[in-house]
Order: sequence, then C-alpha cells, then structure tokens
Amino acid sequence: RYFHFCKLPGRVMGIRLLRFTSVVIIVLLLVAGALTALLPNIKDDKMPNSRREPKTQSQSALDSFTLIMQTYNRTDLLLKLLNHYQAIPHLHKVIVVWNNIGEKVPEEMWNSLGPHPVPVVFKVQTVNRMRNRLQNFPELETKAVLMMDDDTLVSAHDLAFAFSVWQQFPEHIVGFVPRKHISTPSGVYSYGSFELQNPGFGNGDQYSMVLIGAAFFHSGYLEDFQRQPEAVYALIDETQNCDDIAMNFLVAKHTGKPSGVFVKPVDIRNLEKDTNSGYSGMWHRAEHLLQRSYCVNKLVNIYDGMPLKYSNIMISQFGFPNYANHKNKM
Amino acid sequence: RYFHFCKLPGRVMGIRLLRFTSVVIIVLLLVAGALTALLPNIKDDKMPNSRREPKTQSQSALDSFTLIMQTYNRTDLLLKLLNHYQAIPHLHKVIVVWNNIGEKVPEEMWNSLGPHPVPVVFKVQTVNRMRNRLQNFPELETKAVLMMDDDTLVSAHDLAFAFSVWQQFPEHIVGFVPRKHISTPSGVYSYGSFELQNPGFGNGDQYSMVLIGAAFFHSGYLEDFQRQPEAVYALIDETQNCDDIAMNFLVAKHTGKPSGVFVKPVDIRNLEKDTNSGYSGMWHRAEHLLQRSYCVNKLVNIYDGMPLKYSNIMISQFGFPNYANHKNKM
Repeated sequence: RYFHFCKLPGRVMGIRLLRFTSVVIIVLLLVAGALTALLPNIKDDKMPNSRREPKTQSQSALDSFTLIMQTYNRTDLLLKLLNHYQAIPHLHKVIVVWNNIGEKVPEEMWNSLGPHPVPVVFKVQTVNRMRNRLQNFPELETKAVLMMDDDTLVSAHDLAFAFSVWQQFPEHIVGFVPRKHISTPSGVYSYGSFELQNPGFGNGDQYSMVLIGAAFFHSGYLEDFQRQPEAVYALIDETQNCDDIAMNFLVAKHTGKPSGVFVKPVDIRNLEKDTNSGYSGMWHRAEHLLQRSYCVNKLVNIYDGMPLKYSNIMISQFGFPNYANHKNKM
Repeated sequence: RYFHFCKLPGRVMGIRLLRFTSVVIIVLLLVAGALTALLPNIKDDKMPNSRREPKTQSQSALDSFTLIMQTYNRTDLLLKLLNHYQAIPHLHKVIVVWNNIGEKVPEEMWNSLGPHPVPVVFKVQTVNRMRNRLQNFPELETKAVLMMDDDTLVSAHDLAFAFSVWQQFPEHIVGFVPRKHISTPSGVYSYGSFELQNPGFGNGDQYSMVLIGAAFFHSGYLEDFQRQPEAVYALIDETQNCDDIAMNFLVAKHTGKPSGVFVKPVDIRNLEKDTNSGYSGMWHRAEHLLQRSYCVNKLVNIYDGMPLKYSNIMISQFGFPNYANHKNKM
C-alpha cells in the first residue's frame, strides 16, 4: 500500500511529464520543419548536362560568375584589365591569384580607388606555380568561373553572350580559344591549332580543347582538379605549362563528350605588348608548343587513354554586332 | 523389394534425366544470353535532350535521315532538286508528298532514269493541303526527318553539318531559316524576321522559331502532330499556311525550351524564279505575313499561352569553308 501510494503521485506526475514532453517534442518538430523549409536548396546535381534557358538577370550566386585571374610580373596589365572586368554584367567577385612571390599585393591602392562594383580578393601565393589558379578557393561562391589570362581583354558583349551560352552548356568549357590534338600513325599525338591537318571527319576543321585562359567553366571542376593523380601536378609543375590541357582531359573524361564549346569572339585582344614590365608571357618560350605536345602524350599515359573528343560547333551571337549577320543569299 | 527394384532404374533414369535437363537448361540460358547481347538496343527515350557526339557514318535508320518534300505545281524544280538531294550523305529515303491532285506522279520517268542512290516514295494526296507533309508516314524509318520546301536548294556541306548538329540537339528543330515573334504592350503578338525590333534581352537579335521548310527534326514530332487540337488543323487548312509555326509551338511546348537551333547556311538558294510553271509560292501572297501574325495569336489561344522561347545561338561549322574562319584578332 505504501508502494501503491507512492506510485500514485508518480503516475500523475508521469502523465503530466509525458504530456509536457510530448508538447515539447511536437514544438521542436514544427520548428525543425520550418527551418528545413527555409534552408536554401542544397546544390543539386553538380554537372547538369542539358541545354537550359539562360536565367534572367540577378546577382545571386546561381546567376553570376567569379572571375579568376592569375598574374605574374604584369601588374600594370592586371590593373588595366581589372578596371574593365570589374564592371562586366553578372560578375559576382574577382579572385586575383598573386604569383608575384614576396611582392605586396596592390590592395591599399585598390581600396583607395574605391568604391568598386564587386569585391576583389587578392590570394597571395607562396610559390610561383602555373596551377595556382586551379585551387578550389573558399571565396568561390558561384557555380560558374570565368578564367582569364592577365594579358587578355575580351569585350563585355562577348563575355555576356558566352556566359549565357555556358548556362546552356554548364558541363563544358565555354570559351574563345580553340585548339586541337592530332593522332598520327605512330600513335604519338601532336598539339596544335588550325594549321595542323584536320582529324579527317569530313570537311572543315575540328577542335578538341578550349583553353581556360579565356573561358567559362563549372566551379565543380576546380574541386575535381584537386583529386587528380599526382603525376598530373608534377607534369604541370615540371613544364609550368599545360594546366589547361589537363583541365580539358578532366572535363572530357567526366562528360564523355567534347570538353569545350567554342564561342567565336567579336573583340578579343592580347595586351602583352602594352606592358611596361618587359615580361611577355610563357607562350613565347621556344619550347612552348613542343611542351604542349609532350603534355598531351604524358596525360594520355597518366589517364591510360585519350579522352579528348572533337567538335566543329562554332557559336556566334545571332544579330550581333550586325543585326543582319545571319542573312543568307535567299 | 519389387518396389525397391522398380525404384532403382527409375532413380537412375531420374538422375540421368535430371542431368540431361540441367544441361539443356544451361545451354538454353547461354543461347538466350548470347541472343540478348546481340539484339540491337531498344529505342530509348524518344526525345533525348543532351548534347551527344555525332555517330560515325552508317546508313542504318539510327544514323540517317528521311527527306520529306511536299510539292505543288513545280515538278520541274522537284526533279532538279531530287537529283541533288538523292545523293546527300546519310540520306536514307525520300518521301515526296504529291499535292498535284489528279495528276500522275512521275514515277515511271523516275524509274526509267534509275538506278537511284536511295528509294523515293511518291505519296499521292487526295486534297491539296499544306499540312499533308506533316503526316506520320509509315514509310518513315529513321529518327530524323529533313523537311525541305520544293523550291529550296541547300548545299550538301550545309546539310551534312546540320545533320551532325541535329544529332547533338535531337529534340530541337535544327535548320537554316530563323524567325521570331514579338510581344506588344497590347498583348497582341506579331510575327517577323530581323527587321522587327528585338525582344529586348540585351544586345543583338533573338529568334523564337526555325522554319521547317529547311530543317531537321525528330520524326517523333510527326507522331505528336497527329494528336493536336482540331483547331490547329482547322487553322492551317483555313490559311494554307502556318503549319511550321504550329510545329514550333508543339516543339516548344514539349521541351520547355527554344524550339529551334539555327545553323547559318553557307549556300542556300531559292529556285523559285527557275520554274517554268509560273507558280511562285505561297509566301508571295499579299496577306502572307499578316496571316502568320494571325496564326501566332490564334495558336496562343488554342494552346492557352505562348510557349515559344527566344534564343540567340547561331551555329556555324568550325573551319569551313574557310579553314581559318574562327580566327580572331589575337
């Protein structure tokens, strides 16, 4: 009876506790539900592959791109280009990869000449490496990357159009500089541009790479690049070259399709000659092109096969700059 | 013991029978497995929507197309064009839609001038209707249709390239003649070409239709066309016009994307003036363009909305005819 008596208040308290606990649990579930509904969508399929409509203007991370520009020994060109690129439509942020080891970034000067349309981040590097620009920068918030060499000027019109094309082909490298490889009967590959014989698929020429020094591509590929065989990094470091060829291999392997989509630029300029530094860029080295053929063959070894595929699609903007640029003889 | 005796041979025979049956079953499974491996792939998703690589040359129904050409009162042009088109690469068959009611098809003459590279089928019609060419012809074996007006000459180079482009965009109308609609503040639409003001998406022009009188599209859309609202057929019959606008509405509704992909032709010719018949085509009628604006608005009513979407993608062939046609100022 003592036992029973002791149980009674316990049971009553138990019921109240139970009721209270239930209410708390229900409230917590409701709050959790509300929070889940408010959370931003998790990034879905990272590499969508169908042609989509370009989105309307918005500076959100989904509808804008991040410019990544690596620079070495041409700060005058860099600053000139930044003045141009900082105002490109749909630009979200600029990341400057500072390969001038030991030299201070021009951040003070940059800030003193503000305000600026978008944030610019200077990423100080410890070693002057070509592949520094292919890091998966934490500051990168957009799905799209625009990568530009620090001596290349592309018009805003070209960039706006190419970005809209990238949005329709987000798993490809969409850019302005096409190149190709050629197989030879010996099985050794050669790298080149349009002067090389065409690969033999009917008339016209083909390209199998789009260089990343003037191109849009999905930021997910920077993530993928961190997971490549060590031999790829060694190759790029050894040659201080070929990071773009490696990226084309990566993309082609990933998609099973041609890595790039070539957009014919209306106005693209090389500002090399305009620099005061006297520095004229890696591609002037005597061995530059031979190195790139060398890289193609090494990458085929590393990846155990040739993943690059040919395309002959050349995209231009309908009705621009000449509103009748599509006219035919009919 | 009799029982046991009888069981013994039964059991022995049973074991032999079991072994024999097992062997037969295993052999049958192996044969079935081999057959399955050899079977051609079932036609997968009829409307694939990702950019694919063009297949290598083959005259199979998967890698070739059927030319559908409707003809009225211009048999001289028809025969001239047939001599050209019959030898286009990847052509599987020609279907001539004979709108010359009561007139004999030139089949005897055709046969007497054989042999021909591909079969040509003359489909005699009972009524002279513009939409006769949009039937789901039983003779159609290929996934791809090339539809040409009977006064339009497109070069073999252009067709070979456009076919390869269609193979990468099989759910779109891939062709040589872009047109657009314009919205006006009143909500009434207008139809036109590049002279109309652009729809206002940045610089350059836009197109929202690709005419089917010189285009590739998926044969599945002919099937779909048979299932449209009666009002669509009535509209086309009333105007003897606008079947191509209706097809663009159909395709845009189906894909939710721009219906067409415009390939800029290198060599496209209108042979109207060359006919002896004196017949010069429907588009010379005074009301032709006004009719087409009328059709756009009627179709918006019928489909309860405007499904057409704009595109400014213009595709050309890389390195053809000029192997340096992609060169830029760099």
